[in-house]
Amino acid sequence: MALTQARTMPGTLELLPPDQIAFQRMLDIVRRNFERFGFLPIETPVMEFSDVLLTKQGGETERQVYFVQSTGALEKSTEGLPELALRFDLTVPLARYVAEHEHDLNFPFRRYQIQRVYRGERAQRGRFREFYQCDIDVIGKDTLSIRYDAEIPAVIYAVFRDLAIGPFTIWLNNRKLMRGFFESVGIGDPERQAHALREVDKLDKRGADYVRDTLTGEGFGLSAGAAKKILDFVQIRSHGHADALAKLDALGADNAAYVEGVAELKQTLELIRAFGVPETHYAINLSIARGLDYYTGTVYETTLNEHPQIGSICSGGRYDNLASNYTKSKLPGVGISIGATRLFWQLREAKLLGAAGNTVQVLVAQMDEALLPACLSLATQLRHAGIATEVVMESGKLGKQFKYADRAGIRFVVVLGPDEIAKGTIAVKDMRKQDQFEVHGADLVKTLRVELEQAQVMPA
Amino acid sequence: MALTQARTMPGTLELLPPDQIAFQRMLDIVRRNFERFGFLPIETPVMEFSDVLLTKQGGETERQVYFVQSTGALEKSTEGLPELALRFDLTVPLARYVAEHEHDLNFPFRRYQIQRVYRGERAQRGRFREFYQCDIDVIGKDTLSIRYDAEIPAVIYAVFRDLAIGPFTIWLNNRKLMRGFFESVGIGDPERQAHALREVDKLDKRGADYVRDTLTGEGFGLSAGAAKKILDFVQIRSHGHADALAKLDALGADNAAYVEGVAELKQTLELIRAFGVPETHYAINLSIARGLDYYTGTVYETTLNEHPQIGSICSGGRYDNLASNYTKSKLPGVGISIGATRLFWQLREAKLLGAAGNTVQVLVAQMDEALLPACLSLATQLRHAGIATEVVMESGKLGKQFKYADRAGIRFVVVLGPDEIAKGTIAVKDMRKQDQFEVHGADLVKTLRVELEQAQVMPA
Repeated sequence: MALTQARTMPGTLELLPPDQIAFQRMLDIVRRNFERFGFLPIETPVMEFSDVLLTKQGGETERQVYFVQSTGALEKSTEGLPELALRFDLTVPLARYVAEHEHDLNFPFRRYQIQRVYRGERAQRGRFREFYQCDIDVIGKDTLSIRYDAEIPAVIYAVFRDLAIGPFTIWLNNRKLMRGFFESVGIGDPERQAHALREVDKLDKRGADYVRDTLTGEGFGLSAGAAKKILDFVQIRSHGHADALAKLDALGADNAAYVEGVAELKQTLELIRAFGVPETHYAINLSIARGLDYYTGTVYETTLNEHPQIGSICSGGRYDNLASNYTKSKLPGVGISIGATRLFWQLREAKLLGAAGNTVQVLVAQMDEALLPACLSLATQLRHAGIATEVVMESGKLGKQFKYADRAGIRFVVVLGPDEIAKGTIAVKDMRKQDQFEVHGADLVKTLRVELEQAQVMPA
Repeated sequence: MALTQARTMPGTLELLPPDQIAFQRMLDIVRRNFERFGFLPIETPVMEFSDVLLTKQGGETERQVYFVQSTGALEKSTEGLPELALRFDLTVPLARYVAEHEHDLNFPFRRYQIQRVYRGERAQRGRFREFYQCDIDVIGKDTLSIRYDAEIPAVIYAVFRDLAIGPFTIWLNNRKLMRGFFESVGIGDPERQAHALREVDKLDKRGADYVRDTLTGEGFGLSAGAAKKILDFVQIRSHGHADALAKLDALGADNAAYVEGVAELKQTLELIRAFGVPETHYAINLSIARGLDYYTGTVYETTLNEHPQIGSICSGGRYDNLASNYTKSKLPGVGISIGATRLFWQLREAKLLGAAGNTVQVLVAQMDEALLPACLSLATQLRHAGIATEVVMESGKLGKQFKYADRAGIRFVVVLGPDEIAKGTIAVKDMRKQDQFEVHGADLVKTLRVELEQAQVMPA
């Protein structure tokens, strides 16, 4: 029979078990912190009705959407879009969920969602068509206190502290502040603001001269003074809490939106400090804009201090109305998203991922077939104590079994031979310390637990 | 603007947070036990190339498959099947995974996989188009010891013991034993065996007389004696370990397959006992056939003793060759699958699910705006100690805050008012015990931890 070549779709990240364990640990840390902050889990179906999913977005998103059809539907439908499509983010499904279940939810509704999303992008290195997003959002009904804007960075801080991938900075800006600033330099029109921001975005790549020339050039027509103001503004970064406040005061906000934005950002900074986020880990960055047509207040990005090339690893912000396409209720919210698949891939590329070890903690070796029942019983005892245990089911050379444990990253090999049974002891080989010792049968669980707990280094 | 009606596709189980928490706990228990038995995690993309996915299965499966196309592909392709499709189980992706990564895996390869699968079934109550499967498999290279067949029921036992949904029985049979038995009554042809089994499957619904008449009728033409033997055989169930062995011995196996099947089943039973599975929880049931074209040795089903109408909640078996469509290597294996979405739905329908409580353990109330920073700092302290904590961000009536905690199933409300701050204490309301007490600030974490740990009743 001819074989079919086993292969996966490009643009997906399928992992071997050691990497899968490391990835799973990352998701577990994210989830644990989301739960610690009182966010509630939801999951939504991977498919949504196309008309529901594509209400909001324009052509760009539509070109990237995967449509889904069962065989029957494929045969029938030739006109119009297929009925179903895969979600491309977790925000539209959240909007649909909140609108659909509005009367069954408590507001402010604090939800987390860790699921995969799909985008039919051109396949290229580091771009994924299937990837995990880890989202939190707080959704208010009619209103939502600005105080929630400060809780989000506290969650970001806890997550990335626990992930222990090096120093990071949570950057904050405020869209009202930005809008007010642009008004103050004579750019009141939102379209022109967006255009200016797109030009400013080229600062890193093209340099200040290029951007200044564009802003003062024919297409834009700003005065040299206004262009300078813009360039100075977007380059403002703070170093420490007091510096952030001082730089905000020094802006000299002179219109309503500007003043309100500055006040919101200052209040948010004060509460971030009250949440116990160290001032080394948050700062203002007045160049951050994020989705211009979506966010309306605070906006966030997060970068690794030593790996700026990775870009933002966690972004989001405040929006005025989550679900205006599905409900007349006004649902303001604030939230962030971590693109976990891309993050994992980048950390691995940058060699920032430590060895995750194996989920299996103990290998019960087998020397003698007659002792298999004793080995199985020992394994049951270990598992009952919560220790992940694999049993070698076919007797073979002990050396080969040790080698297997070593390569697989299994910490302990436990050996139960006739000698040990006669003495009531168990031989333990610690593969990490390359140390061998004997314990009394009754002490095995306790001894291994102590060693395994010491090994679980939790970042402070 | 016209609103789009927010709605989900029929055949999906979208849950509100309290149910989602209960479902997540179920998956966590499954995963924890899979890991304790030394199974390694993998995840595969939800989409597979259609030619890879549909290699094995015939028309029935193809009619149930969801095909996926990006917009561009939709416009182009009019002939042939779309390039991509959603997986309909986790077995075909496992076969593809093992064949694709064969040289990077250790054999026996022990993997678990907990992901959603998709079937374009006709929507009806209790049938899902999107549902979770929780699978474990052990895959050998060339050979795989029969001993692994005994480990699977030990995992099933641990999972359902921890799920604590009532007494259950793991039923075992062996396809070789069945084949041998049918040969011994003169039905050697596999097609006729399958036909006879399909008839026997109607026993519960149509009764013994109906089945006997069919087997001895024109279409089948068995002697009355042979029909009786078949009916007696498929009704064999054991009660306890010794009874299972005795009933297997009493079969009087008289051909090679029959003898081999009996020996395999006896050996499996002995090792299941060695794994510490109580004999009240496993039994032989010679009517169990499972996928006739797939399984070749041991087969499993699991039922809830008090809810037989739910049917098998965990099934699987031994197969000779996992990935013959993708590789020339011989990859025998044994595994099971738990259909978690359907199980959860059925348990909820049967009111067998206890209240899962909330993931949030403590609500920090807010009496006075000026004290917000103190409340946030207290919450940070609790979270740092691993206690899931929500903070009321806007001051309001304390009674309303208690009511919210009560309805949301949050165990403790912590109140920090001016009086408490003056005294250095914190007021705690235990919503479950309807008890209120005061603790010193320094003792809060310890006190709550003790109470919360006591509440985590772990089934033995």
